[in-house]
Amino acid sequence: MESHIGQIGVFFNPRSVAVVGASRNVSKAGHVIFKNFVENRTRGVFKGDLYPINPNEDQILSYKCYPSLTRVIDPIDTVVIVIPAESIPKVMKEAAAKKVKAAVIISAGFGEVGNTAIEQEVKDIAKNAGIRLLGPNCLGVYDSRSGVDMLFLPETKVLQSGDEVVATPRPIPGNLAVVSQSGAFGVAALDYLTGREMGISKFVSFGNKADVSEPEVLSYLKEDDETKVILLYAEGIASGREFLRVAKEVTERKPIIALKAGRTSSGARAAASHTGALSGTDSIYESAFAQAGIIRARDMDDFFHIGKAFSAQPPASGDGIAILTDAGGPGVMAADECELRGISIRKLSNETIQKFEKLKEQQRIPKFATNLNPVDLTGSASSEMFELAAKILLDDSEVHALIVIGLHHVPGLTEDFVDRIASVVHQYKKPVVACDIGETEMAMYVRSRFDKQGIPSYSSPEDAARSIVALVKYGLYLMKEGCYVEYLASMKGRNEPTTR
Amino acid sequence: MESHIGQIGVFFNPRSVAVVGASRNVSKAGHVIFKNFVENRTRGVFKGDLYPINPNEDQILSYKCYPSLTRVIDPIDTVVIVIPAESIPKVMKEAAAKKVKAAVIISAGFGEVGNTAIEQEVKDIAKNAGIRLLGPNCLGVYDSRSGVDMLFLPETKVLQSGDEVVATPRPIPGNLAVVSQSGAFGVAALDYLTGREMGISKFVSFGNKADVSEPEVLSYLKEDDETKVILLYAEGIASGREFLRVAKEVTERKPIIALKAGRTSSGARAAASHTGALSGTDSIYESAFAQAGIIRARDMDDFFHIGKAFSAQPPASGDGIAILTDAGGPGVMAADECELRGISIRKLSNETIQKFEKLKEQQRIPKFATNLNPVDLTGSASSEMFELAAKILLDDSEVHALIVIGLHHVPGLTEDFVDRIASVVHQYKKPVVACDIGETEMAMYVRSRFDKQGIPSYSSPEDAARSIVALVKYGLYLMKEGCYVEYLASMKGRNEPTTR
Repeated sequence: MESHIGQIGVFFNPRSVAVVGASRNVSKAGHVIFKNFVENRTRGVFKGDLYPINPNEDQILSYKCYPSLTRVIDPIDTVVIVIPAESIPKVMKEAAAKKVKAAVIISAGFGEVGNTAIEQEVKDIAKNAGIRLLGPNCLGVYDSRSGVDMLFLPETKVLQSGDEVVATPRPIPGNLAVVSQSGAFGVAALDYLTGREMGISKFVSFGNKADVSEPEVLSYLKEDDETKVILLYAEGIASGREFLRVAKEVTERKPIIALKAGRTSSGARAAASHTGALSGTDSIYESAFAQAGIIRARDMDDFFHIGKAFSAQPPASGDGIAILTDAGGPGVMAADECELRGISIRKLSNETIQKFEKLKEQQRIPKFATNLNPVDLTGSASSEMFELAAKILLDDSEVHALIVIGLHHVPGLTEDFVDRIASVVHQYKKPVVACDIGETEMAMYVRSRFDKQGIPSYSSPEDAARSIVALVKYGLYLMKEGCYVEYLASMKGRNEPTTR
Repeated sequence: MESHIGQIGVFFNPRSVAVVGASRNVSKAGHVIFKNFVENRTRGVFKGDLYPINPNEDQILSYKCYPSLTRVIDPIDTVVIVIPAESIPKVMKEAAAKKVKAAVIISAGFGEVGNTAIEQEVKDIAKNAGIRLLGPNCLGVYDSRSGVDMLFLPETKVLQSGDEVVATPRPIPGNLAVVSQSGAFGVAALDYLTGREMGISKFVSFGNKADVSEPEVLSYLKEDDETKVILLYAEGIASGREFLRVAKEVTERKPIIALKAGRTSSGARAAASHTGALSGTDSIYESAFAQAGIIRARDMDDFFHIGKAFSAQPPASGDGIAILTDAGGPGVMAADECELRGISIRKLSNETIQKFEKLKEQQRIPKFATNLNPVDLTGSASSEMFELAAKILLDDSEVHALIVIGLHHVPGLTEDFVDRIASVVHQYKKPVVACDIGETEMAMYVRSRFDKQGIPSYSSPEDAARSIVALVKYGLYLMKEGCYVEYLASMKGRNEPTTR
């Protein structure tokens, strides 16, 4: 018998896929899904065999169409099912006869609308036949490297003007895995990540979780070399004990960043009518997540921002955060946010302060720069000053993490300050994040240049602060668990960027 | 004697401006500032007279140059000073002799670096001559309509590649006033607002506040027809009692949204070395702000998001928030955030629930849409359903504010859902905000279309929730103070968009 890992792997790397409900009609989900696979196969991304199943067609997109699964001669690893719920038990029986390994039921109309009997029937067939089942009522799987793409939402929409626009894009390959209970939020996440040029490894949407749920997928992702960071959206978590046991194992190797909605009574009531999830008392989740080393995001932006930080930077080896800035106000804002998230900003060591004093005497940084932490180079900052100051700070053994706030507006600052800072940062194994504020050309250019250098950049001081605090807290957790060194060693490349 | 309002008005609408330290050299602040005025005058935006003052030049940008203020024959309303601090007392004496009304000292090198004597001298000269003084060590004033632009940071920077990029843009005219203690943050705010197409009326940076500070400027903005919303960044507020007295008057007419940094001990220490501000205990600010009706932003994004909400929407007349969505998860997230910010989401009235049940019977909304609040139209949502549901919700007298979450990914949704919702919203005097998630074409298009319809849009459910909660809380404050009706009446146009 295959291991659970192997069973789950079939969803992401099937040698052959059948789409039951494949269609020629562009408005049908069965068309979009089948076409995704066809296009990825044509491009050489999806390498498996492909079978459209539809009794009313001879061929779809030049692929020979079969009236049923059992009429396919070669073996089928994974079946994607997009036909009405009432017809699915019959298909599942055929899948069982065909010895299919995994089934994904995209269709809705099961337990979530009260049709629990049909959900149970489908579940029983799968269980008896040893078929692993994802869904029903889900968006299935997207794998950026294997070319598996079960999303029935087309990449583009045509507006009433006739203009075609990107609507549900697929992110580039990268090291973030996205695991979502909510399909709609999962798709929105893909849209966000694409626009922010953050790459993903795998995407899974669970739907009703008739069989496969979080613990097995997390176990699988723990072993997945393409995944470095796991982003988990959940409203309620069933089999909580098993989930926490697995999560604790995973977080010794990879961070799990969780957005757990239904935190308040308003939200819990909404969640109950959405997924039927019993959200449970939030404080229970809070402490359970902390024990399992799960990093909890406070909101959607936090979720993505922290994911970005982990995809490119290592956790910190202590709680000493330094802030380097050319703008006083934003330095204050970052200091505030670090403390609000639980990590106070300490004064720098006397030794480091003296190094800055010496630079002042040498007139290499402004006489009135402040150096207590934040280190404020003031509006007279230059690229060279940023480089010098970053080096002094990262040299300090009491500085475990660094926030660089480089507002580009300052007159003497040229864009090479990013590269100069990066050249220093790359000599250390300490996490660094950057901030520039603004939504026009130069600000976006500076942030993108930081990102390309593997230093995650943010558009507000608080976002940068929250991300570095997450890197600090996770580092403290790993040290407490005695697996910090092992974790660092297992990271393939320290600053490999997530973004292109 | 002129009123304080009139005295402050001279900073924003001078009939004549002299720039002391005007220069031909592009790298000098005195060049950038003088050129700003020249360009705005050429374009017909700045209508006053303009005098460059520099003893070493005959003319600058074709304007006759004067060796000193006293050599100008016609009267001068406002002087902008950008020469080294030590030469400024002499210039201030000339300004006094010339009966100048207002002086703005951009130059640094005063109290903020320990040169308190020279700051006191300048202050005394101004006081004795009745000259109102802004700064020193500030960025001065930008007025989008009068063409006053004292920002020494050029709009563009040239990269090492030779490419010219927008670096410190000036926002389009709009109804937000930006008042900032931090110059750097102020400039960054202009960059943000420009990129997000949020227009401003006026920008003021105080610097050392030798004379003019928050209370007078707030009083002035209260009477300013071009300003509807005031965004205030502060680290410490001197003359707190006077500030709160004025703020309370202002907030009966216009919202003040405050970002008060230095909230924690880490931040307070940073603020002390930045502006020398004694940040004070945060809880004191918290309660003082609440008493004065000041809306407190939690972070930078909050600051801008709430500003955007107020610039286009009225405050609510009660605390009943409805959430309308096509995506369950984001609906839960919005409900959570409303409650976390202090406003719980209540179940809708039976009457309203029955209206939705009737629509289900008529098959005009999905049978499995939920209607308790959030109202979830599910992934089967269409534009018509959004229109119907918005109308039912806004018709409910217990619904005082509405969050619309319209994720565009849903297959049946066409972009006209925005216009259909807007046509309903415009029939009511209830605040509405919108959310679509995603960072690629269609998401941005949907959000921009909402913005153009005067419905502020946000890229996360929590941002939308925070903004609507601010509109609710401010409405409750106005009602408690007995000035809600008057406030609404004074609003010129209910949904006039802030964005172009």
